[in-house]
Amino acid sequence: MKIPRLQMLKLELKTSRIEALTDGVFAIAMTILVLSFEIDVPKDGPNIEALNDVLFNLFPEFLHYVESFFLLSAFWIAHHQHFNFIHKSDRGLLYINIVALLFICLIPFTTSLVGDYGDFLPAVLIFEGNMLIVGMIFFYHWEYASRNNRLIDKELDPIIVKINRQNSLVIPVISVAAILLSFIHPRWGTTVYLSLPILYLFLRRDR
Amino acid sequence: MKIPRLQMLKLELKTSRIEALTDGVFAIAMTILVLSFEIDVPKDGPNIEALNDVLFNLFPEFLHYVESFFLLSAFWIAHHQHFNFIHKSDRGLLYINIVALLFICLIPFTTSLVGDYGDFLPAVLIFEGNMLIVGMIFFYHWEYASRNNRLIDKELDPIIVKINRQNSLVIPVISVAAILLSFIHPRWGTTVYLSLPILYLFLRRDR
Amino acid sequence: MKIPRLQMLKLELKTSRIEALTDGVFAIAMTILVLSFEIDVPKDGPNIEALNDVLFNLFPEFLHYVESFFLLSAFWIAHHQHFNFIHKSDRGLLYINIVALLFICLIPFTTSLVGDYGDFLPAVLIFEGNMLIVGMIFFYHWEYASRNNRLIDKELDPIIVKINRQNSLVIPVISVAAILLSFIHPRWGTTVYLSLPILYLFLRRDR
Amino acid sequence: MKIPRLQMLKLELKTSRIEALTDGVFAIAMTILVLSFEIDVPKDGPNIEALNDVLFNLFPEFLHYVESFFLLSAFWIAHHQHFNFIHKSDRGLLYINIVALLFICLIPFTTSLVGDYGDFLPAVLIFEGNMLIVGMIFFYHWEYASRNNRLIDKELDPIIVKINRQNSLVIPVISVAAILLSFIHPRWGTTVYLSLPILYLFLRRDR
Repeated sequence: MKIPRLQMLKLELKTSRIEALTDGVFAIAMTILVLSFEIDVPKDGPNIEALNDVLFNLFPEFLHYVESFFLLSAFWIAHHQHFNFIHKSDRGLLYINIVALLFICLIPFTTSLVGDYGDFLPAVLIFEGNMLIVGMIFFYHWEYASRNNRLIDKELDPIIVKINRQNSLVIPVISVAAILLSFIHPRWGTTVYLSLPILYLFLRRDR
Repeated sequence: MKIPRLQMLKLELKTSRIEALTDGVFAIAMTILVLSFEIDVPKDGPNIEALNDVLFNLFPEFLHYVESFFLLSAFWIAHHQHFNFIHKSDRGLLYINIVALLFICLIPFTTSLVGDYGDFLPAVLIFEGNMLIVGMIFFYHWEYASRNNRLIDKELDPIIVKINRQNSLVIPVISVAAILLSFIHPRWGTTVYLSLPILYLFLRRDR
Repeated sequence: MKIPRLQMLKLELKTSRIEALTDGVFAIAMTILVLSFEIDVPKDGPNIEALNDVLFNLFPEFLHYVESFFLLSAFWIAHHQHFNFIHKSDRGLLYINIVALLFICLIPFTTSLVGDYGDFLPAVLIFEGNMLIVGMIFFYHWEYASRNNRLIDKELDPIIVKINRQNSLVIPVISVAAILLSFIHPRWGTTVYLSLPILYLFLRRDR
Repeated sequence: MKIPRLQMLKLELKTSRIEALTDGVFAIAMTILVLSFEIDVPKDGPNIEALNDVLFNLFPEFLHYVESFFLLSAFWIAHHQHFNFIHKSDRGLLYINIVALLFICLIPFTTSLVGDYGDFLPAVLIFEGNMLIVGMIFFYHWEYASRNNRLIDKELDPIIVKINRQNSLVIPVISVAAILLSFIHPRWGTTVYLSLPILYLFLRRDR
């Protein structure tokens, strides 16, 4: 098979590679979210009070775990929604994906940070900013691929391009709302994301 | 390829994607079960007494590791048994899978909790409850896919639908038994799962 | 596609699934070997003496890392050598694979144990025993699949069956040698595995 | 399918296997880079000063995270660039890949080391040496596969072989520069890698 020189220079990776790396990163990020759950055992052996303390302290972390898990799921679904229609890759798309992964890999850390310091504005803003950045990268990801049908099928229904663009805005918009609310009260901001599953059910059912 | 608008709106992901993410999560969950095994080294260097302590303290954790490993394997087999027959996906199936993964990712944590606090009812119930929930989600997973042949082949032998339903009930039933026994003695409850490999060999051989 | 009832009852998973889970477990086990490398930082900030201590203490752990990495690689190659010729699966093969994974997932732990307690016989025997068990499971894996051409192609050259059987014996034999040497001196036992790469180069070149 | 005896003896693994393991290792290495970010919480509960300390101390580690993430991405892209053209494997290629993975798996550790001890020459040299070694292995990887068209298509445009060779030299050359600069000042050395993304954009655009 004689690969055209131009194609080589354009750094066209098969999309299956990008998807494999991305699926791996999502699977790991989801699974290691839980590694920040600390289980302290007293030196003189376990006892029921220590266990109750562990469980009581884990409750806010558990809420943040659920939150981050649904956010990661939403990003993963978005990624695959896009690649349902993207059938080739170029250097730009590759770089967008790598920058997206850079911030997705941070999510277990920012989740852990907000789990420990959920009452403090800087920690909350870092968590929400992380989600805003990933959301905006994914919005740009679709813009880049679909503009002038650069990397998608030329015959793709324009309605689908539009729906994907609108869906890509959900998390950025929620994140801006969360950030604004955080300035009133840090805990309020992160609570906004818990509305995500309900929001998705409604948003998509209507169409 | 012109993708029908309706299909897009229904959020039909290729089942291969769901399987790739799920395989990744299972592989990681199985592997990080062991991360909770702590190896303490005295400050003045390792010695044989410290090593014996480490090994002695790890023994109950090791049993829980084996237990959780077989449970994860059983869930993984169930997942693939289902996807042997599920050839398309819809939004409902996708959401069921994500909620299943949410609780599967918790298994390394609940295993570690019961490893440290195996004599205390709350820890044991959280572990067993985790298994019950995953088991019930997988039971519903098959119900959802097979009801009225929604996502499976219309010509699939009804016996196979029935066998899959029965197999999906094994872990929920064992989990309920484990929970009840835990109220008599916490250690008894978790021991029930160790019967799982033997049970599977017998259950399936008879048919 | 009407799947035969018998095939369902035999629990025939596609081999691609088993391979995907196995590749995932190997990739993770290889990568988290390094998580046991501890980097202590003094409370009053890093200094050159502390760094030298860290590096000096890590040296034996690094050797065990290399050792375990090559052992995991050898197991991974063996697994794929087998699946080059195994084109279908049954319940027995599935269970053999799961038990193999159970012990492969222990390797990061036993590596870490021997890294910390490499001068003590129990730790060394646990490490070498782990390798012996995985090696023996893989030997049985090939025996099970190839006996009477159960799961391999009927026209497969018998020489290949034989070569695979012989290759599967390399790690068990080395492990027995390592265990015996460990009784003379614990450090000697684990050193044996460092000969593995050289051994492989020679063993296979001759044929 | 009768597999030729010779092919078996040559240990020809399907390249898809090597790629699957490699993708897994890269995904995990990228994701666990963040596990070294420590979030200390004071015993008397979290407070804003402790949070500021955590964030302040994490800043240099974050820079090294970004650096290592881009380096891992560059290696991953190189690996897939090579496998775009490598359509069969032999024992030599397999061993080169395993040694490459051995050093790639070390990157989370050496990143963490330079994050903690970034002002000290030995730590910096270990990090840069790690990158140099991986870079050189990947250079040799392409040399091995392309020399006399051993494992690539015979009709592949020689220009592409040459471009791949040149691209493979980028990281080794940068690493040598980084090592030399480190002797003047440790922090300068690691800073060099931050130029990588910009460098890549320019280097490749020109052709």
